[in-house]
Amino acid sequence: MTASVPPMGWNSWDCYGASVTEAEVLRNAEYMAKHLKRFGWEYIVVDIEWYQPTADTHDYKPFAPLTMDEYGRLQPAVNRFPSAENGQGFKPLAEMVHRLGLKFGIHIMRGLPRMAAHLGCPIAGSPYTCREAANAADVCAWNPDMYGLHADHPAARAYYGSVFRMYAEWGVDFVKCDDIAREYPRCRREIEIISEACRKSGHDIVLSLSPGPAPLEQAEHLKENANMWRITDDFWDEWPLLLAMFERAEKWCIHSGPGHWPDADMLPVGALRQCYTIHPRGDWTNFTKAEQRTMMTLWCMMRSPLMIGGELTKNDPFTLSLLTNAEVLEIEKKSYCAHPVMRSAERCIWVAPSRETGIYIAAFNLSEKEQKMDVEGIELPSEYVAKELWTKRQTENRINCMLGAHDVALWHVCGTFSCRSSSASSAWTD
Amino acid sequence: MTASVPPMGWNSWDCYGASVTEAEVLRNAEYMAKHLKRFGWEYIVVDIEWYQPTADTHDYKPFAPLTMDEYGRLQPAVNRFPSAENGQGFKPLAEMVHRLGLKFGIHIMRGLPRMAAHLGCPIAGSPYTCREAANAADVCAWNPDMYGLHADHPAARAYYGSVFRMYAEWGVDFVKCDDIAREYPRCRREIEIISEACRKSGHDIVLSLSPGPAPLEQAEHLKENANMWRITDDFWDEWPLLLAMFERAEKWCIHSGPGHWPDADMLPVGALRQCYTIHPRGDWTNFTKAEQRTMMTLWCMMRSPLMIGGELTKNDPFTLSLLTNAEVLEIEKKSYCAHPVMRSAERCIWVAPSRETGIYIAAFNLSEKEQKMDVEGIELPSEYVAKELWTKRQTENRINCMLGAHDVALWHVCGTFSCRSSSASSAWTD
Amino acid sequence: MTASVPPMGWNSWDCYGASVTEAEVLRNAEYMAKHLKRFGWEYIVVDIEWYQPTADTHDYKPFAPLTMDEYGRLQPAVNRFPSAENGQGFKPLAEMVHRLGLKFGIHIMRGLPRMAAHLGCPIAGSPYTCREAANAADVCAWNPDMYGLHADHPAARAYYGSVFRMYAEWGVDFVKCDDIAREYPRCRREIEIISEACRKSGHDIVLSLSPGPAPLEQAEHLKENANMWRITDDFWDEWPLLLAMFERAEKWCIHSGPGHWPDADMLPVGALRQCYTIHPRGDWTNFTKAEQRTMMTLWCMMRSPLMIGGELTKNDPFTLSLLTNAEVLEIEKKSYCAHPVMRSAERCIWVAPSRETGIYIAAFNLSEKEQKMDVEGIELPSEYVAKELWTKRQTENRINCMLGAHDVALWHVCGTFSCRSSSASSAWTD
Amino acid sequence: MTASVPPMGWNSWDCYGASVTEAEVLRNAEYMAKHLKRFGWEYIVVDIEWYQPTADTHDYKPFAPLTMDEYGRLQPAVNRFPSAENGQGFKPLAEMVHRLGLKFGIHIMRGLPRMAAHLGCPIAGSPYTCREAANAADVCAWNPDMYGLHADHPAARAYYGSVFRMYAEWGVDFVKCDDIAREYPRCRREIEIISEACRKSGHDIVLSLSPGPAPLEQAEHLKENANMWRITDDFWDEWPLLLAMFERAEKWCIHSGPGHWPDADMLPVGALRQCYTIHPRGDWTNFTKAEQRTMMTLWCMMRSPLMIGGELTKNDPFTLSLLTNAEVLEIEKKSYCAHPVMRSAERCIWVAPSRETGIYIAAFNLSEKEQKMDVEGIELPSEYVAKELWTKRQTENRINCMLGAHDVALWHVCGTFSCRSSSASSAWTD
Repeated sequence: MTASVPPMGWNSWDCYGASVTEAEVLRNAEYMAKHLKRFGWEYIVVDIEWYQPTADTHDYKPFAPLTMDEYGRLQPAVNRFPSAENGQGFKPLAEMVHRLGLKFGIHIMRGLPRMAAHLGCPIAGSPYTCREAANAADVCAWNPDMYGLHADHPAARAYYGSVFRMYAEWGVDFVKCDDIAREYPRCRREIEIISEACRKSGHDIVLSLSPGPAPLEQAEHLKENANMWRITDDFWDEWPLLLAMFERAEKWCIHSGPGHWPDADMLPVGALRQCYTIHPRGDWTNFTKAEQRTMMTLWCMMRSPLMIGGELTKNDPFTLSLLTNAEVLEIEKKSYCAHPVMRSAERCIWVAPSRETGIYIAAFNLSEKEQKMDVEGIELPSEYVAKELWTKRQTENRINCMLGAHDVALWHVCGTFSCRSSSASSAWTD
Repeated sequence: MTASVPPMGWNSWDCYGASVTEAEVLRNAEYMAKHLKRFGWEYIVVDIEWYQPTADTHDYKPFAPLTMDEYGRLQPAVNRFPSAENGQGFKPLAEMVHRLGLKFGIHIMRGLPRMAAHLGCPIAGSPYTCREAANAADVCAWNPDMYGLHADHPAARAYYGSVFRMYAEWGVDFVKCDDIAREYPRCRREIEIISEACRKSGHDIVLSLSPGPAPLEQAEHLKENANMWRITDDFWDEWPLLLAMFERAEKWCIHSGPGHWPDADMLPVGALRQCYTIHPRGDWTNFTKAEQRTMMTLWCMMRSPLMIGGELTKNDPFTLSLLTNAEVLEIEKKSYCAHPVMRSAERCIWVAPSRETGIYIAAFNLSEKEQKMDVEGIELPSEYVAKELWTKRQTENRINCMLGAHDVALWHVCGTFSCRSSSASSAWTD
Repeated sequence: MTASVPPMGWNSWDCYGASVTEAEVLRNAEYMAKHLKRFGWEYIVVDIEWYQPTADTHDYKPFAPLTMDEYGRLQPAVNRFPSAENGQGFKPLAEMVHRLGLKFGIHIMRGLPRMAAHLGCPIAGSPYTCREAANAADVCAWNPDMYGLHADHPAARAYYGSVFRMYAEWGVDFVKCDDIAREYPRCRREIEIISEACRKSGHDIVLSLSPGPAPLEQAEHLKENANMWRITDDFWDEWPLLLAMFERAEKWCIHSGPGHWPDADMLPVGALRQCYTIHPRGDWTNFTKAEQRTMMTLWCMMRSPLMIGGELTKNDPFTLSLLTNAEVLEIEKKSYCAHPVMRSAERCIWVAPSRETGIYIAAFNLSEKEQKMDVEGIELPSEYVAKELWTKRQTENRINCMLGAHDVALWHVCGTFSCRSSSASSAWTD
Repeated sequence: MTASVPPMGWNSWDCYGASVTEAEVLRNAEYMAKHLKRFGWEYIVVDIEWYQPTADTHDYKPFAPLTMDEYGRLQPAVNRFPSAENGQGFKPLAEMVHRLGLKFGIHIMRGLPRMAAHLGCPIAGSPYTCREAANAADVCAWNPDMYGLHADHPAARAYYGSVFRMYAEWGVDFVKCDDIAREYPRCRREIEIISEACRKSGHDIVLSLSPGPAPLEQAEHLKENANMWRITDDFWDEWPLLLAMFERAEKWCIHSGPGHWPDADMLPVGALRQCYTIHPRGDWTNFTKAEQRTMMTLWCMMRSPLMIGGELTKNDPFTLSLLTNAEVLEIEKKSYCAHPVMRSAERCIWVAPSRETGIYIAAFNLSEKEQKMDVEGIELPSEYVAKELWTKRQTENRINCMLGAHDVALWHVCGTFSCRSSSASSAWTD
């Protein structure tokens, strides 16, 4: 099964925008193999515009010529990805990543290159041309590269088939398809033919849909057609965005499960925005340590995929510790049926059973002030041991603590329940 | 703690509308004590207009004079509730119910009687009159009895205090307050002062809010101020209403917990509509047996309160069996973190861990056709025993079955998980 | 034809609220007969709650007992209207007003008195009672006196017939029916039966509907069922309300015509709010002289009914001059097809042909600054004489002027057009 | 002044779609000069895609190469417009039309050709390229030719300046700019710079905006920046579209005036759809004679521009008579302040004063049945002569008639009014 647990890896966007190079990709892959792989991290994903020779920041350059084969399929820009010379595409780079024991992923934009439509390039292995597949009225609002396709025209299936077969030949394990998840219902049919092309590519490829928010009412369609999909717009290192994720996570939590994972987006930790000389938020995460714990806890409790955004080789000890807390990370694999039991402006509490033993309880301080977090209202065993997974402190029959602003406590609670009757004295709200 | 588990009982509305009498109430209480009590059923609730002497059907008679004391507090109509003679109110009836080992509840409309406002009755134990408490512009859309109150005026708190103290003296254990839950945000403040009056009444009273749908975005306010609240408009024995409950249940499931229960409304089973000579749907439930199992299963999985709507003394063997399936009913007490893992037009699957051992899995056939229900995609133990709780059949390492239209299978699955890694072969969507 | 030209008169609300007395009414009637009648002013209208004995300000007292006959028909409170003694109603007062050569009007609330419904009063000349006619769920949002009626029940027609026959017997010439015009479509049917009762009353009664805004899309229904209807909520002496009237007037102007007049509400000029000891806006109009000219000009150009709001006996010379400018007032009778030709944040220009000769042109300075008003763009005759009707200045072949903040120029332009061909040099926008 | 009266002419779209040729244009121009010019018809307008060599129907061919100069300015396709050879553009054709005493117009799409952006063509007389002016995210929903422009970038003004100077040099008298009027507020700024480019072109060019509906709330902005603008989507020969125009006309009528005309779109009369071999509606107008009279009357009463859609040389006698009724057509030049005085599902009546003498009254039968049209309710002179302008019948002191389905009567009424007082017996609604 594809993506039987939430995918974990690294993505180039948060540090390199549209400009990432082969050397940068390899450097991060090597770091992951050495320091992170044994904790479950495995995907290395090259984000947007690897086919644009002049890309050098997070921005897009309208009407810039794109590297493309004669069938209108985008190819890595050789000046940025030297191993792609002689039409080899990403095959050599994927092999290098695989040799490290990792998996290789790429970003694509929905559709086909505009110039391929204007030139009328033939579609590989089909009687059609890009002119018939492209929809002249369907352009992305924020990126100038592509035309969307007439999803009901056979040329569209032919085109997506031709590119996914190429990705499979390259050895791509993960495709992040962009300009598509927020666009329901306009792209519903296009998602279906992309999903089909992915499944028929001949290789096991995780399909990820961006950007968010994907619409909640399309949950079942998403579960059938994708392995993960974004639930918000781009996530960055700003507290209001993290705070807003609690509502999103609450709405989507029931839809997490093997093969289909609501995605809270990349983790902006460590060294970010390396492709800018100056940026208002600087080149290191703005999140406090407390906020980073809160983010990791929420992502794990909701079983979001985890994609690191920072340049890994610049990790400091705290960042590395955040990414290698094995007891926290294994929640992604062991928990199920997670959900919040309360959420107010000041606090939020999530609960999830473990498939092995016990219950995970996360208590978030969403406020700007220190506060006592008291979760005695939750139905707990009469006798239990609780371990807080960030501090590793153990307590018996008691789980409360003081938490600073934006911080979290995450307990693993083990004990035995004696089930309550109406005369039981267990208490939640009172 | 009030309502630490979902309340279970009987309510007079579905069979007697606005017209129920003391004899009818006692007859059902006696039946409950004898046949149902040991399965957890305990509340006997007198629904709307017990203060209206001429009520004789489900309908309301505008401007009918209501039985009322000199403080503008409604009293049981003595022609219908003889034990209320001499101003004793519901105290004698509550005692009779208590002597059966059961609890006693009543329905009230938000506000105060219109005539009490026009007459300017004094409010007991206060310097105010009903004229100051009542809001002349606030009337119920469907019942003609009351004016809403100016919730920010001290006369309103004085009035609600005066009636809840009277209910406490009568020995009322359960109050279903109507014309209030769907009316957010208009009634938000009024809910707070009713909740306060209830808590300060001097007696432990479950507070239930009607009608639905209560607004989802008010979930935390509801949890703080009520023990149960309706999530839909009145529920009756029609498949489209039952089908629609699946969406409601999905939205509300994360908000169920000790002391606060989203309420899917009464169970229209057995003998209904006894106060009509003729009714288009007749005087017996229109639900098929399959649909009744589906309803009971959904209500239990979502941990809704259970209030039987039918005349108990007319139960047939099937109805009685439905209400006395101990293994099904105990899901209400033992499960937690329940939620659907998929819902389409044809099928729905719910999962809930048991606090004791194992997992409950309910597979609903929402379609009009027989279909094979296959839940192998759910992460199950490698070795397990499954018991279907309606048929009592046990299987090992396999839980699928054929289900007829609108029917359900409800398994209790016990085994041990070995937690999955990414290389595991478990499958959900394929 | 009823209301063949827009009705002009005086209404008690702006100065006396709910508290006006017979002496106050008569004092204003005598002033009108002496000073205003010859300019076209003729209606004397007693506004809301003439049946409430304790009314003494603009406010309503919830649940106050109302003066009422045995058929549930409201009667003038005798302590306020002594001539109504012995059940004579408004007949004596109407006669006094008629003897002055004027017409008499009253205000009513839609529906019947709440207490008449609770008591079950019989409806005069019918087999019904008020209990059957009244709709317990239909109460006014801002006044506590009445229940709305079940417009499709014959008891409702019987009740309205009984009150309008009484008004006809009293000699009432004008009825302002309130809580009805803003309430489309809920009151659509009730408007029809009131209109029918009015037409069949046996007396020629102008029917006016309040409050506004009446919905524009109901224009044809209004034209068929009423003689005037409010196009805004209550209008008072505040510039933002006057400014907002320009948009309303623009939308409604095409619907003005004999028998049916969109109504911009009373003219808050002179001595206002006489029933308050203190009021934030004081007891004299807050409008500047310029604003009063602007209001009178807009009302006349759009052919709104004119109802003076101030205590007439306290008029100062300016106020009197405003109400007796014959050339301005006759626009109400002579113009047709009026409409704005431009409206921006700073200025607005209205044009209306005269049925006799020439064109009326009004140029409004809506800004806070003095500005030159230049209307040369309008298609004017090559040779013409223009008279500005507020200053009485005449010019030839030129109509521009400087205008202070919120002021207006209103010209009557006479000349002969030679119709333009495409080669003509006339200019509007350039 | 540009467009001091509503423009009248012929447009190629309704008969030739995107495919019109020079020969077809000239044939219609010659007909106009001979048969229509003396009635006020003067514009000959070449509609969409004169720059597309392979256009042969009403449809557009996505990604077809367009004829373009080195500055990214579209040029007539020489295979369709032979006189455009050697880079002469429309100059020779415009001269031919001018020699017939007529004016010449063209259609343009907002923006610049997509290929000009991809190629980075320089913008004539500026330091910019088309790449900077074009907005890659702004494409037309229904035509594949252009990118919209970044209206705030100086390159956009440079581009529009360069094309309008070219049009002025060609001698273009009329530009119909498409994909812009319905697109408020997105195109508000782009309209301003097009309007500026038009005014500064060095030639007097009427600026027309399409398609509709333009938003009513932008009326003043439209008046300032364009000479005409569409008030509906494309109008064709179908009664529901004609019926719907009555509501549009009512809303827009007050905004008609010299230099700025709300446009009800082309007149689909006579021979239409000549570029299709088969079309469901055929190649002759589907309007009945009555409907054609109704259309012409409404367009004239509302003072819409008049653009004939049919192939003129195929006119039959009725069509020619419709287009040459001088008394009807002169309403466009002589009337003002027109508006409907009533509009129901069955009928509508418009009134407009004449600037010379009398009043125009149009009574429309909107129903499917013959009905008597009675307009006595309108305030008419006591003594008058009425001439019905389609039948030329005269009556005295009476204007009513029987009208068949969808037909109209259009009277010119002359007499003298004696202005009404409130005691007058004139009647409108009664």
